[in-house]
Amino acid sequence: MRKLNIAIIGLGNIGSYLFKYLKKNKKIISKKNNCIPNVIYVSAKNRNRNRGFKISNKIWLKNYLDATKNKNVDLIIELIGGAEGPAKKLVFKALKNGKHVVTANKALIAKYGDQLAKIAENNKVNLEFEASVCGGVPIIRSLKEGLIANKINKVYGIFNGTSNYILSSMDKENKSFDDVLFNAKKLGYAESNPSSDLNGDDVSAKLKILSSLCFNSFLNNNIHVEGIKNIDKDDISYAKKLGYKIKLLGYAELIGKHIFQRVHPTLIKESSYVASIDGVLNAVIIDGAPVGQSIIQGEGAGPAATTSALISDISSILRGNVKFPFSISNKERKNLNFKQISERDFSAYFRFNVIDKPGVLSNITHIFSKNNVSIKRLVQDPNKNKGSSSIIIITHPSKDKYLNKIIGTINRRSYVKKKSKLIRIDDE
Amino acid sequence: MRKLNIAIIGLGNIGSYLFKYLKKNKKIISKKNNCIPNVIYVSAKNRNRNRGFKISNKIWLKNYLDATKNKNVDLIIELIGGAEGPAKKLVFKALKNGKHVVTANKALIAKYGDQLAKIAENNKVNLEFEASVCGGVPIIRSLKEGLIANKINKVYGIFNGTSNYILSSMDKENKSFDDVLFNAKKLGYAESNPSSDLNGDDVSAKLKILSSLCFNSFLNNNIHVEGIKNIDKDDISYAKKLGYKIKLLGYAELIGKHIFQRVHPTLIKESSYVASIDGVLNAVIIDGAPVGQSIIQGEGAGPAATTSALISDISSILRGNVKFPFSISNKERKNLNFKQISERDFSAYFRFNVIDKPGVLSNITHIFSKNNVSIKRLVQDPNKNKGSSSIIIITHPSKDKYLNKIIGTINRRSYVKKKSKLIRIDDE
Repeated sequence: MRKLNIAIIGLGNIGSYLFKYLKKNKKIISKKNNCIPNVIYVSAKNRNRNRGFKISNKIWLKNYLDATKNKNVDLIIELIGGAEGPAKKLVFKALKNGKHVVTANKALIAKYGDQLAKIAENNKVNLEFEASVCGGVPIIRSLKEGLIANKINKVYGIFNGTSNYILSSMDKENKSFDDVLFNAKKLGYAESNPSSDLNGDDVSAKLKILSSLCFNSFLNNNIHVEGIKNIDKDDISYAKKLGYKIKLLGYAELIGKHIFQRVHPTLIKESSYVASIDGVLNAVIIDGAPVGQSIIQGEGAGPAATTSALISDISSILRGNVKFPFSISNKERKNLNFKQISERDFSAYFRFNVIDKPGVLSNITHIFSKNNVSIKRLVQDPNKNKGSSSIIIITHPSKDKYLNKIIGTINRRSYVKKKSKLIRIDDE
Repeated sequence: MRKLNIAIIGLGNIGSYLFKYLKKNKKIISKKNNCIPNVIYVSAKNRNRNRGFKISNKIWLKNYLDATKNKNVDLIIELIGGAEGPAKKLVFKALKNGKHVVTANKALIAKYGDQLAKIAENNKVNLEFEASVCGGVPIIRSLKEGLIANKINKVYGIFNGTSNYILSSMDKENKSFDDVLFNAKKLGYAESNPSSDLNGDDVSAKLKILSSLCFNSFLNNNIHVEGIKNIDKDDISYAKKLGYKIKLLGYAELIGKHIFQRVHPTLIKESSYVASIDGVLNAVIIDGAPVGQSIIQGEGAGPAATTSALISDISSILRGNVKFPFSISNKERKNLNFKQISERDFSAYFRFNVIDKPGVLSNITHIFSKNNVSIKRLVQDPNKNKGSSSIIIITHPSKDKYLNKIIGTINRRSYVKKKSKLIRIDDE
């Protein structure tokens, strides 16, 4: 049987899991792909870390970059992480030297994916990155193969398990953001530094990758990104009263000839599919023709789910299935018209915390009307013993820039006690 | 650019849609796969049917079997349907003559898939059948590629849109089976002869195919199949009161060393994911390691969704990605231990329609206890003005054969007015 020689670079949680899994399942993977995955080298920053298993001295590389020069290596698996530094150096050199690359590195692909894909295509090698977007959800292979027939007009969903866990726990346990985050860290659902999970950057990188794949465009940085740090318990409970849940959603959508990319907390109808996805799960929804709506759901992260994705990429290379990294040749990818969301229409949820005095409500509604934003529902909720009120407003659809203008104007008023909130609504 | 010469055999709704779609999207499909899908022949039983578009006289075959002999044909797309007759003849001959085959024919694959896969493997051609199982849900490609790493222990879900539409409409509109079926036919959601949709045969064929793919086994006919014809409005409303929905589900599961294949109406918790799938949608849930639970949902049938699946198979062949039809070599597939469900444990829902007289309830509960089936909940509901009662019993898990024995015993009692009901519960 044919063999494919592999170097695994990076042996943290994921690299170690993959190494063990490949060893244990070598036979069945070989049988399924008619080719043996043969790990001949590994490298890691910390060689002496206790990984719970033995690695023969013979297969340690002196320098991780040696893998890119070694004639026996066919495939390099990059599990170092980070858009710059050693991961970048490794993947660029590997592709330039005609090695296949499999990576779980969303930051790298979202930043340098176009350049890397070009090199891979020129050298007729694979660059695969299923594990970079929602590990347990085989979304990239589905877009590149299972749904290849389709013209996609929208891809959206829950792409970050940590933030989804936090929002759904705040909802279920009626706890504050900080309390839930503290617990999430203890339980291992949030990293010790979870900032890229919470500020939307993680979703942003994944969305850019998906959006290129869906629309056959180059990667584009025109993306609106908001995280979940400003969502508090009150927003979640008001949303609930109004029939919504709050989720951190990523959207890439083709409207007319424009593409909008956006990541932000969203009010979504409680009865919708996306609202039902709780905890650390990920879910991707694709609207396309002729298929209609397709949904793929699964575990988003962790060594096990990520290994499932890595093995899928490795298997594809074992079978000799050389593909364009972004589904279509570099020469055919386009620079499409990506647009700011300021021009897109949204219904919105506003929450104002104001001093309880005559004229405030009238001033607020006046500002809405001056900006041509029409109000669908208004709830005024006096805060006990504080001389203040919460005013919740749900609007009809209006351009995003007007919604933001309203927030800006009202925040400058002296009757405002706390910074006002604006959360977009998904009414579809 | 390379070309692949295609013959489409069968030009009904699906064949016609595919023909048009391939013509219209030839350029983009060629670009994505670096190979041109070139339709050189077609054939259909009724050449003169009005298809709404023109087909050049030159590409009509005199005899559909000529496609299997013609040296220029690389790929035959079989859209005739049926497990026997011309479809069978065509696919066997095509593979024997070294042609790739793409088919949407679940009956054929469920019956002759093993023999066909062997011929395909020996002749190093592809036999692809994504469209045979849940068209808009790329489940076969996901099992063979996206989730290839995983050891699957269970696959289940909603595999038939027609029966799901009927059950969910009965629930939502509180109508009888016959009324809903009548409407479904008018709306095109049920065929004029929907028997294979309603009696479980359609699900059974799909499940056999999935189960082989999941467990690397040969196709096996040890499968328990029940349809939805005996479900009535009362069952649906009692289920609802108890917190359940009734769905026609297919299951293939590995428990210990045994595989159980079963298709039957099932009470499933209202809060579960599967319960939320209404209308003509299909949903497939896969439990595997290391991935955990993966869900794929989409439109199950119709020319558009089926074409999406067919193009995915065609694209795979365009790219030269030759694979084992059932994921693994014929030599490696196994005859696993498939077991009757009589030995499996289920909780169950029973409904008895009995004469209202003393001693009946005590006799019924006595029969349960004699069969060692313990009762979890019991509801007695007197039917107005009829001198009869409905007795609903929910049991704790018990072997299927004992549940069936109870039904048999009680149905022979003179106090029984209508045939008793037994519906299995999914409590997981």
